[in-house]
Amino acid sequence: MSDFKELTEALVKFRDARNWEQFHNSKDLAVAIGIEAAELNELFLWKTPEDCEEANRTRIKEELADILAFALLLANKHGFDIREIVLDKIKKNGEKYPVEKSKNLATKYTDL
Amino acid sequence: MSDFKELTEALVKFRDARNWEQFHNSKDLAVAIGIEAAELNELFLWKTPEDCEEANRTRIKEELADILAFALLLANKHGFDIREIVLDKIKKNGEKYPVEKSKNLATKYTDL
Amino acid sequence: MSDFKELTEALVKFRDARNWEQFHNSKDLAVAIGIEAAELNELFLWKTPEDCEEANRTRIKEELADILAFALLLANKHGFDIREIVLDKIKKNGEKYPVEKSKNLATKYTDL
Amino acid sequence: MSDFKELTEALVKFRDARNWEQFHNSKDLAVAIGIEAAELNELFLWKTPEDCEEANRTRIKEELADILAFALLLANKHGFDIREIVLDKIKKNGEKYPVEKSKNLATKYTDL
Repeated sequence: MSDFKELTEALVKFRDARNWEQFHNSKDLAVAIGIEAAELNELFLWKTPEDCEEANRTRIKEELADILAFALLLANKHGFDIREIVLDKIKKNGEKYPVEKSKNLATKYTDL
Repeated sequence: MSDFKELTEALVKFRDARNWEQFHNSKDLAVAIGIEAAELNELFLWKTPEDCEEANRTRIKEELADILAFALLLANKHGFDIREIVLDKIKKNGEKYPVEKSKNLATKYTDL
Repeated sequence: MSDFKELTEALVKFRDARNWEQFHNSKDLAVAIGIEAAELNELFLWKTPEDCEEANRTRIKEELADILAFALLLANKHGFDIREIVLDKIKKNGEKYPVEKSKNLATKYTDL
Repeated sequence: MSDFKELTEALVKFRDARNWEQFHNSKDLAVAIGIEAAELNELFLWKTPEDCEEANRTRIKEELADILAFALLLANKHGFDIREIVLDKIKKNGEKYPVEKSKNLATKYTDL
């Protein structure tokens, strides 16, 4: 079994034991991802990029796990294959950011 | 090879071809996740939860893929094992949300 | 004195008493606004739009105040006049959303 | 008339000309603030804090104005007095962050 499938099954089992699917509409799952992303950002707030690399590893792990958990649940709700959607997006980004135009540049593709 | 490893390798290859690791400090990766989460939320803005389920599937896939991509890159930067951190978090959440106390409730554990 | 000026002065006084200007670069102030926005969103998470109107008023006030505080500090850092930038944006939005095309529609201007 | 009142009236007039109050429940207004905050953050993404101070001023103005606009509309919906809620929050923060404990420190009050 793939990793994503294993994790998704564990998440669904956790959710269903609590009968939480009733709350997990797409909109609220998206809001939840945004909230967890903000909690991740809070770990780095007011810190220089260098000091951020010293931030609390346990907390980073937990916030990343929360983001991934809600992302997997939303993907599962829509029947998306994680492997496929990420590989498709990498391909699409390759067209938006050709190597020769974007090398060493952090510029958004709309401004390249 | 695990799915996560395969995707992480594809993301790192894409990043390194453009020499973008120089921009990918933890703080900016976290900000990037937050931005992609907001783009996902925008797909559902001003819509009822029911109408959200009809939202553009292609766009949802792309925004979810962006969130996952930056999350995998941040995990890779810190050497985290995705499978492990998500399973650890599920276990921890099980302690914060015991089935008997949280069933059918969307209440935050601090208010249970 | 204008309200904005009064509030900005109170915020700057608070900041300077703690010597916090050293942390208040534009990037971190923007991140802080995003974090406070997520804390506001958390008050409404997993709730129907109707139930949201019953949410904790004290908490909504506090999160809104935090968002406004960091927004005023960022505006002050760049010397922006709040009244002017908001009135300018309303004018600009009027061009993006002409009444006849956008009435009763929650559609983004790029899709109108 | 206070600045806030003037801006709120202009925003309400804009909203009502398009009959948009039907979309402006508290939950979606909060999501909208989060989206605008992310657009502000995008202006600074992958930039060093120093380079951020050189970012596009026009875009910063616009994103700040959008954040303020939705914050004022949400405050108006709940009948909050902006001046009062911000001054109340400054007072509350003064108790969480006493000068002697927080001077020169970016530490969150829970860790002080």
